[in-house]
Amino acid sequence: MTENRTIQVGAVIFEGFELLDLYGPLEMFGMLGETEGGLATTVLSTKAGPVKSAPGPSGMADAAMDDCEGCDILLIPGGIGTRLLMRDAVFLARLKRLAEASKIVATVCTGSMLFAATGLLDGHRATSNKLIFKQVRKSAPNVEWIPSARWVEDGKYVTSSGVSAGMDMALFLIAKLRDRNTALRVARRAEYVWNEDPSRDPFAA
Amino acid sequence: MTENRTIQVGAVIFEGFELLDLYGPLEMFGMLGETEGGLATTVLSTKAGPVKSAPGPSGMADAAMDDCEGCDILLIPGGIGTRLLMRDAVFLARLKRLAEASKIVATVCTGSMLFAATGLLDGHRATSNKLIFKQVRKSAPNVEWIPSARWVEDGKYVTSSGVSAGMDMALFLIAKLRDRNTALRVARRAEYVWNEDPSRDPFAA
Repeated sequence: MTENRTIQVGAVIFEGFELLDLYGPLEMFGMLGETEGGLATTVLSTKAGPVKSAPGPSGMADAAMDDCEGCDILLIPGGIGTRLLMRDAVFLARLKRLAEASKIVATVCTGSMLFAATGLLDGHRATSNKLIFKQVRKSAPNVEWIPSARWVEDGKYVTSSGVSAGMDMALFLIAKLRDRNTALRVARRAEYVWNEDPSRDPFAA
Repeated sequence: MTENRTIQVGAVIFEGFELLDLYGPLEMFGMLGETEGGLATTVLSTKAGPVKSAPGPSGMADAAMDDCEGCDILLIPGGIGTRLLMRDAVFLARLKRLAEASKIVATVCTGSMLFAATGLLDGHRATSNKLIFKQVRKSAPNVEWIPSARWVEDGKYVTSSGVSAGMDMALFLIAKLRDRNTALRVARRAEYVWNEDPSRDPFAA
């Protein structure tokens, strides 16, 4: 994706998603200017409409997951709601189809644990929330879980650590799809101190 | 507010609000556990319902501003939408009433520029987004604008720098209303590297 066309992001939300897992990356993506090729976000859920987050406030889904034909970046946040969905075969089938139809799948926090339940992460390196790392490892033993990493890229899968790590990963994705200077400009616009080195993990498990 | 009762947060949104200005602080607040006294958030707007952010995705307002009788922390995000509202006398009167009825008013990014338009910041020290600091200063010449500060506390007004600075300020407010250890625990849960020193401003104007 070297051409400068608009990046299409699809972000999946569900009851009990973590606010910053979703809106941290969407803020960084949203700060890409038109002259930087721009970016369009669609928030997806089982159906369109308001969806309650783990901390309380609701986000809005613009469209149903089934109506999306895949995107450049499929963003999967974490949150307490992942616990139920990991055992929901209908939801997992929807998520798997979307992931297969998308160019990059990017997860934040326990979003990787949820995504691993589709089986697509098996045999891949990945990371997740560091406070519940044992539980994550146990839930998907066929994934090569990395205990010290702010984010991990393995093929089309990019998984990040807990909550705030999603913003560092989002800037990495901007650098990957555009260039490093663009990512640095976006970080400055957001007055965000980018942890640019994925091996620097202040919260390693 | 030394007693350990639930902290009531009211967060004002409007068309063109910046996502992270709002959801960064609400994530930190939302990570306060029940045993830490807890916190309840109500998202407010001119009326209840979905409200489109500057980067695109919509947030949901739970209630109308006029139906709120004040709160412990009134949170005012920034965003491109502040430009119009700064000249909207009806909105400013609503915001002023809410601010006067609340114990703490906390702003993020150009939220301070919007709030200053009520006149309540006149004679107070405050800060704001650093990329448009000249414009902020010009828009409210009777405020003592501080060009180098991650956030500024002056009486009941706490104003923070651009976008990401709201998360540092939110952790400061948790430390203020609870204690420093609670704020450090919340930061760790969010895997967030807290800039705890308000005088350390990597983006000073």
